[in-house]
Amino acid sequence: MSLRVGVLGATGAVGQRLIQLLAPHPDFEIAALTASESSAGKSYREAAKWRIDAPIPDDVAEITVGATTPDDVPDDVDLIFSSLPSSVGAEVEPEFCEDGYVVSSNSSNGRMDEDVPLIIPEVNADHVDLIEVQRDERGWDGALLKNPNCSTITMVPPLGALDEAFDLTNVHVSTLQAVSGAGYDGVTSMEIIDNAIPHIGGEEQKMESESRKLLGTFDGAEVSLHGMDVAASCNRIATLDGHLENVWADAEEDITVEGAEDAMEAATGVDLPSSPERLITVFEEPDRPQPRLDRNIEEGMGVAVGGFRETTAGVQFNCLAHNTMRGAAGASVLNGELLAQRGYI
Amino acid sequence: MSLRVGVLGATGAVGQRLIQLLAPHPDFEIAALTASESSAGKSYREAAKWRIDAPIPDDVAEITVGATTPDDVPDDVDLIFSSLPSSVGAEVEPEFCEDGYVVSSNSSNGRMDEDVPLIIPEVNADHVDLIEVQRDERGWDGALLKNPNCSTITMVPPLGALDEAFDLTNVHVSTLQAVSGAGYDGVTSMEIIDNAIPHIGGEEQKMESESRKLLGTFDGAEVSLHGMDVAASCNRIATLDGHLENVWADAEEDITVEGAEDAMEAATGVDLPSSPERLITVFEEPDRPQPRLDRNIEEGMGVAVGGFRETTAGVQFNCLAHNTMRGAAGASVLNGELLAQRGYI
Amino acid sequence: MSLRVGVLGATGAVGQRLIQLLAPHPDFEIAALTASESSAGKSYREAAKWRIDAPIPDDVAEITVGATTPDDVPDDVDLIFSSLPSSVGAEVEPEFCEDGYVVSSNSSNGRMDEDVPLIIPEVNADHVDLIEVQRDERGWDGALLKNPNCSTITMVPPLGALDEAFDLTNVHVSTLQAVSGAGYDGVTSMEIIDNAIPHIGGEEQKMESESRKLLGTFDGAEVSLHGMDVAASCNRIATLDGHLENVWADAEEDITVEGAEDAMEAATGVDLPSSPERLITVFEEPDRPQPRLDRNIEEGMGVAVGGFRETTAGVQFNCLAHNTMRGAAGASVLNGELLAQRGYI
Amino acid sequence: MSLRVGVLGATGAVGQRLIQLLAPHPDFEIAALTASESSAGKSYREAAKWRIDAPIPDDVAEITVGATTPDDVPDDVDLIFSSLPSSVGAEVEPEFCEDGYVVSSNSSNGRMDEDVPLIIPEVNADHVDLIEVQRDERGWDGALLKNPNCSTITMVPPLGALDEAFDLTNVHVSTLQAVSGAGYDGVTSMEIIDNAIPHIGGEEQKMESESRKLLGTFDGAEVSLHGMDVAASCNRIATLDGHLENVWADAEEDITVEGAEDAMEAATGVDLPSSPERLITVFEEPDRPQPRLDRNIEEGMGVAVGGFRETTAGVQFNCLAHNTMRGAAGASVLNGELLAQRGYI
Repeated sequence: MSLRVGVLGATGAVGQRLIQLLAPHPDFEIAALTASESSAGKSYREAAKWRIDAPIPDDVAEITVGATTPDDVPDDVDLIFSSLPSSVGAEVEPEFCEDGYVVSSNSSNGRMDEDVPLIIPEVNADHVDLIEVQRDERGWDGALLKNPNCSTITMVPPLGALDEAFDLTNVHVSTLQAVSGAGYDGVTSMEIIDNAIPHIGGEEQKMESESRKLLGTFDGAEVSLHGMDVAASCNRIATLDGHLENVWADAEEDITVEGAEDAMEAATGVDLPSSPERLITVFEEPDRPQPRLDRNIEEGMGVAVGGFRETTAGVQFNCLAHNTMRGAAGASVLNGELLAQRGYI
Repeated sequence: MSLRVGVLGATGAVGQRLIQLLAPHPDFEIAALTASESSAGKSYREAAKWRIDAPIPDDVAEITVGATTPDDVPDDVDLIFSSLPSSVGAEVEPEFCEDGYVVSSNSSNGRMDEDVPLIIPEVNADHVDLIEVQRDERGWDGALLKNPNCSTITMVPPLGALDEAFDLTNVHVSTLQAVSGAGYDGVTSMEIIDNAIPHIGGEEQKMESESRKLLGTFDGAEVSLHGMDVAASCNRIATLDGHLENVWADAEEDITVEGAEDAMEAATGVDLPSSPERLITVFEEPDRPQPRLDRNIEEGMGVAVGGFRETTAGVQFNCLAHNTMRGAAGASVLNGELLAQRGYI
Repeated sequence: MSLRVGVLGATGAVGQRLIQLLAPHPDFEIAALTASESSAGKSYREAAKWRIDAPIPDDVAEITVGATTPDDVPDDVDLIFSSLPSSVGAEVEPEFCEDGYVVSSNSSNGRMDEDVPLIIPEVNADHVDLIEVQRDERGWDGALLKNPNCSTITMVPPLGALDEAFDLTNVHVSTLQAVSGAGYDGVTSMEIIDNAIPHIGGEEQKMESESRKLLGTFDGAEVSLHGMDVAASCNRIATLDGHLENVWADAEEDITVEGAEDAMEAATGVDLPSSPERLITVFEEPDRPQPRLDRNIEEGMGVAVGGFRETTAGVQFNCLAHNTMRGAAGASVLNGELLAQRGYI
Repeated sequence: MSLRVGVLGATGAVGQRLIQLLAPHPDFEIAALTASESSAGKSYREAAKWRIDAPIPDDVAEITVGATTPDDVPDDVDLIFSSLPSSVGAEVEPEFCEDGYVVSSNSSNGRMDEDVPLIIPEVNADHVDLIEVQRDERGWDGALLKNPNCSTITMVPPLGALDEAFDLTNVHVSTLQAVSGAGYDGVTSMEIIDNAIPHIGGEEQKMESESRKLLGTFDGAEVSLHGMDVAASCNRIATLDGHLENVWADAEEDITVEGAEDAMEAATGVDLPSSPERLITVFEEPDRPQPRLDRNIEEGMGVAVGGFRETTAGVQFNCLAHNTMRGAAGASVLNGELLAQRGYI
């Protein structure tokens, strides 16, 4: 099987990671790349200032970049990956869906819309059938499916494992996020050298709402948000890749360190081409996981946890994932694979 | 008035900050410096590899460093500042106290001992009279007084202000701590470039216990710990100075953002030579305070706060203080000034 | 004496340093601030996102920013400081000069023009009279005077001292430049964390030509470039402020380490309000100067040197100066003071 | 063919890279690991605090570490890799050679000894036969062969290519070296964050002498140093891996940019298992090579060059290599492979 895929926003930080993942993909063939008007007409090599520390795939480099409109994407493209600024995504993603394209999107627009599935395949793959509701309501032949924010993706697999075993009630999470999460030009060097920034616009709200949708229940018609209370505090630090998070999870049931670790190690993955062999890796060393040492775990698709301590009402721990791989490009690719597996393409 | 003071552990990162503060001090005159055996007999200039970005005070530079024993400190020294590794402090500080010296110590040993006052003058100056209990019990002419850990000092003034107004019940705190907190050689460059370390040995326990002692009640005989629950998660990041902390404070009473900010701005200082004019500065910009921009507020002796948001059970905010000034050397100097003011010297 | 001064490009990285220097200046009073069209009409507080780790001067903060045209600057302004992008400077600086304003400019446009004095007061203050040639040729009542590039300023005072004593023939220089030299947004965090960039557009050419003009001879009619050969290689590294440079200087005469150090220590300054007490400070420690420890020497207006070694044809050494103070804003202020002292205002 | 190999100093930064390269090596089998006395008796997993961002090889992790003496290494080990502090190397390497072991050493001791071959296989493989002189003089059954310093290795392949084509006369080189070059604990975080250090003890002398030995001539009896003059200036910056160097090369013959690039691209490698496919990669982008983007070129075994400009007497360019791979562990492995190929084992 080989599906023809397109990438919207192919020159950005996440777009480049999408290219890195899609170029050698066994089932997908890159057939269209789009970017902003100023890049349209250029070769990808010219349009993308390639910033990944691995060579640009030679055949992709020669593709001519189009503008981000359905007109610039061939009709025989089966699947679209989208990593656009949310304002652009909000405008053009529906146009693609109306034109019949199935879109796996990393853009933040519309994630909390009632008829838009927000999915981490290992956590809530069953929500994918919300697409049927979406198609009914919007009259689309295509479909729009979202992956959550990179900081949300990092904590939800471990939280999902705890919730299944112990029933979560309250979550506090503090993040130490890498600069790549803001895109290539998002954080200037003068802002972050010898510094940290205790604010990322809208990020706390995303973590607080998206996590409850991901762990919510889909009854075939709608997704009910999980009832837990989530409070997030988000910080930018001087790391290139890898979001590290301190989490306190309170639960109905008592949680021991051993119980928490067991629950996380038992979290099963899914059978998709880009799935990590082990979804959650538990470190016993108290100072792990660390961004530089552990972000590439499972080729960047795993989640690493450690630092467990029992608290009065539950357990605290740290978690880490590669924000542009597991947290963005890899998340979209996984969702694209899920769409294919479930017959939505 | 001019008191003759000595500094134990004068060559370390905090020791150098002590020298920087004491050399121009209006009331204190540096009369003795000690360090490890290998430094004894050298000039301070030679023994201390001076690493502060301001010149070494010339007259101090010529002082001959002694070993860290009472024998190497003149009898007419009135007050001792101590910033020793805790294992050394645990051994030699009592020897100085037995010999009649009054010791204002930044070392972590003994902070939770029942008869040792642990003090931030603006928060619990009244605990200083625990010295009388200490002298009774230990038969000392001298005295031992401690300031808390740098990460504790950063959050307790804001928490104290909230507690007075709203009665705290639960605190979660996540820290982003500067490398200077580990001493000059404490964190290697390979550990921290493009990285963060989610563990600082013993630090979480210190924050959880010291904060409850500082906000506890002294009845003339003993200090009762505050009943709130404190859960801390500590991280090291690539900043030179300034500990940034994300705090969630839950309270008996409802807390509004405005109420929290008012309470903190109303926190009064004390009338000591090194007190900041304003103890707590509230920032309205959501991305402040930041370590590089705000750590020197009030000449490094203030606490900066910002990022207030109401939560289900209270309020969340960020706080920042200069860890080797307000959080260590400046804290010890303030406590020395308090000891002088209260007649313990 | 109090001169009314204006600042063109007041919101940029160098513009903010100009404000920091001019606000407390004994002889200058800030009377006008300009920036790009999008900032015009706003208060300076609003227009400038203040990024210096010292408070914004309150009275300056309330000034309304104008557009960068002579119309938006009062006629009674005596002296203009300019720190504009070179393309903008090339267009508007002549307009100000035609309108009679005297302009001390840090912008790179026109520095090598034959009738434009390029000046470091301690090195070639006599070149200032090239203004008379300029006024003759251009028919201006005003005048345009330039300071060199920040990387040039760092090495030319030491080179000038050597040249006077030993007659330089060849110079090789390699730079390690701070990110602030590119302006606040000039270097992204993803470009520089765990990285260095061995290229700064046009910088090598500036160092190679400007240094020869600065050390050239002015005969009352024109400046003859110095005959030495200068080869520069420029790098950006992850420092906030302070350009560090490795220099090899070959000379006609033999140079010993002692001779080189003596020549530099003997370099005299000038009697201007912002002059450093000591122009060049020689470090004997082989690992100094270092950016973080030594960039603020002489309140950021000194040059630090060290690491001298004799070579086959001369001497090698390292030099350092604060690039936005000594190397830019402070350089322009010094030149403004020179213009006032010499009666050009 | 499988040779049994040992690693002296296996727990250090270069030692860990040796393990990373040797564990999957087609011809070598790790049979002995040594470290300091305090590590002897522990498993490698326990003794080495593994700091590489790839997993520790499981089978190596279980090997028991010995002390660094011939007694702790089995007699049937054929080849020893050594990466010891030079004072230790100077003492124990001769003991191993006397006991009949062939040693490929990265330690800096003895590199300039007249009967010790100093080799980069692609540059001067023919020097390997100096071993026969060495065995004659020292009466060893074993042999000692050295690779040069990491900063020397980075520049010598490009310089060798230029020398062959144009006859070098003078070289100036300025380095921007990564912290891993100093070992895991060699540079503290407080020394290097927001800073650079213009001094690395002994490094300049190593570059100046080793490069002349590598490009010297071996006549079967001795190595004559190359007659060129080399002047080096060495700096430490805040990069993890990858030494970047600015080089000016003057030559007898005229050098054009095109001629220099052609000469470097024509540099041929050697036919050894760890040789890079392409020894020197020429970048046309003026801002390349960069440490983070290009240090892993050819799996860390290539040299990257760029930024060519013609100068009065030759050419200037930048070069980069991975300092602990190409510059240390990989260099020793290559030399070990050369020893095997040439029949010295």
